[in-house]
Amino acid sequence: MLNAKAYSAVSATSPLAPTTIVRRDLTEQDVQIEILFCGICHSDLHTVRNEWSSLIQTVYPCVPGHEIVGRVTKVGSAVTKFKVGDLTGVGCLVDSDHTCPQCQAGLEQFCPNQVWTYSGKDKHLGGVTYGGYSDTIVVDQRFVLRIPENLDPAAAAPLLCAGITTYSPLKHWDVKAGKKVGVVGLGGLGHMGVKFAHALGAHTVVFTTSKNKVEDALRLGADEVVISTSASEMIRHTASFDFILNCVSAEHDINAYINLLAIDGNMTLVGAPEKPLSLGAFGLLMGRRSVSGSPIGGLRETQEMLDFCGKHNITSDVETIAIQQVNEAYERLLKADVKYRFSIDMASLKSE
Amino acid sequence: MLNAKAYSAVSATSPLAPTTIVRRDLTEQDVQIEILFCGICHSDLHTVRNEWSSLIQTVYPCVPGHEIVGRVTKVGSAVTKFKVGDLTGVGCLVDSDHTCPQCQAGLEQFCPNQVWTYSGKDKHLGGVTYGGYSDTIVVDQRFVLRIPENLDPAAAAPLLCAGITTYSPLKHWDVKAGKKVGVVGLGGLGHMGVKFAHALGAHTVVFTTSKNKVEDALRLGADEVVISTSASEMIRHTASFDFILNCVSAEHDINAYINLLAIDGNMTLVGAPEKPLSLGAFGLLMGRRSVSGSPIGGLRETQEMLDFCGKHNITSDVETIAIQQVNEAYERLLKADVKYRFSIDMASLKSE
Repeated sequence: MLNAKAYSAVSATSPLAPTTIVRRDLTEQDVQIEILFCGICHSDLHTVRNEWSSLIQTVYPCVPGHEIVGRVTKVGSAVTKFKVGDLTGVGCLVDSDHTCPQCQAGLEQFCPNQVWTYSGKDKHLGGVTYGGYSDTIVVDQRFVLRIPENLDPAAAAPLLCAGITTYSPLKHWDVKAGKKVGVVGLGGLGHMGVKFAHALGAHTVVFTTSKNKVEDALRLGADEVVISTSASEMIRHTASFDFILNCVSAEHDINAYINLLAIDGNMTLVGAPEKPLSLGAFGLLMGRRSVSGSPIGGLRETQEMLDFCGKHNITSDVETIAIQQVNEAYERLLKADVKYRFSIDMASLKSE
Repeated sequence: MLNAKAYSAVSATSPLAPTTIVRRDLTEQDVQIEILFCGICHSDLHTVRNEWSSLIQTVYPCVPGHEIVGRVTKVGSAVTKFKVGDLTGVGCLVDSDHTCPQCQAGLEQFCPNQVWTYSGKDKHLGGVTYGGYSDTIVVDQRFVLRIPENLDPAAAAPLLCAGITTYSPLKHWDVKAGKKVGVVGLGGLGHMGVKFAHALGAHTVVFTTSKNKVEDALRLGADEVVISTSASEMIRHTASFDFILNCVSAEHDINAYINLLAIDGNMTLVGAPEKPLSLGAFGLLMGRRSVSGSPIGGLRETQEMLDFCGKHNITSDVETIAIQQVNEAYERLLKADVKYRFSIDMASLKSE
């Protein structure tokens, strides 16, 4: 087995700190990856602090990170998809059962036996899986993705979660040229939603509460920006959207956006507000509108998204940090003080 | 113009009482119908009592009724669809603009210029339209439907609202053999939902809070009945429904039903609870599930539903009453004391 450097939290109230973890010896299907960059997702923070304890208890020590980009350093004897030196990515999942109807349909995100990249059940070594805040990871080739070489690896890392989480619902709800699409909330998820909706050819409208985000929204690809606190701006868009991607995790009035949907329009939530939202039935009834949710995406679609990014030269807007800055970065994340995603440069881990 | 007998309310607090109203002279496109039966819809009560004043103010006098079945007594010179003696129906709409994209698509229920059968803007005589609690109505042939002669006209009347309101979402969400479908709430809408889901070949599960509705649910066509207050019964159905038709107008926990939806499952609300519902985002995210609403249906689909009813011999379970019992029926409606819809026999109006 292989010792790997990592950052872990030993309890819900501990900061992340240097540690050494073990990675398994390669099975014939495994790929060993030297991690170059790992994005910081809000889920990392929730898990480290055990804030989703009503759904699942975090097991400590916890090594988070599921926006992983790195180079292949070793492959198992049966690995055909990758060779040493390839630029690869690993997202939120490292395994599934491969046999359920969801897996058969390429929807591993819904497999009842999926294995999360961190805080998942480690089938090989027992205990929990350790994520990407580390210098090395070993992953089954079926859960390793190819990163187009033209993309900046630091900025590509967040594609593995923020990217697929926004790309998947846009594709599922058939966003394309001729459609009017809204993106609510311009953060880590939202800024990817804008880039994708624009690249897919839709007329893209960003909703934000903050006037000082207007310029950035336009730069990212928005055709229009609506200040959502302005009733008069909102009313101009009544019943006109084919699709709205709602990236807000804070409490907010979703009915105001439902009223902006056209007949048969859909709003998909990709943020997960802790408290229940207030939903008026009339807004849905009056236009056969729907509200849905969407989590990440399957492996096939994640590769499709990465290829799309390669073709359209799309990456996340990142602030690259050293691993030693990760606790500070979490505090800034809570204040939404990042444009728009942190990406940890794992070269910084060598000095630990 | 023609004097017609009717029952109207003169204010939000007045009982319905006999009156005389005027129906227009036939235009070349019009059909004059002698009303035989008119169903009582909960909307009638809401409108008469001005309970939807936050959405629209009721104009008095108000003659409700939009579940109308009658025989053609006269036709305009250009009427080709109907002849004297035909058994016909009129539902919630008597006109629309015929030119908007929704009308072009046969979705008159979403036309921005639709004219409701009662409390709508009367283009011909000015003022508001008067509904089916009357002996006669004059309607443009495009908004008149053909009732299969094999159906009992008293029991067919509720098809024009309760029928299409439940049939339309079942068809829109592709309910058919091989699908598992839930119907929540066994009232005027729900009992029609059960009949349709069963006739469409779906495995139909009724959710009710009331044990004494089990037998009736099975008689109406349910394959299973779940007592929704039993956590153990509910949990057995987790993540298994393709579609749930939610017919409840009272406050209730929709998240309990969202958790029963399979991947990509949809729950459509056809009841309209007054207060906002509480919606948890995680339930939607975890299975790409959706919640939507649906109001009545278009004219083409309403005729399709009636033809389907003729073929499968489907009508509403009704209690036929005289118009003189209408105020008492409203009180019983509030207590859900009807199995499952009142149908007013308009012959009783002749004695007024």
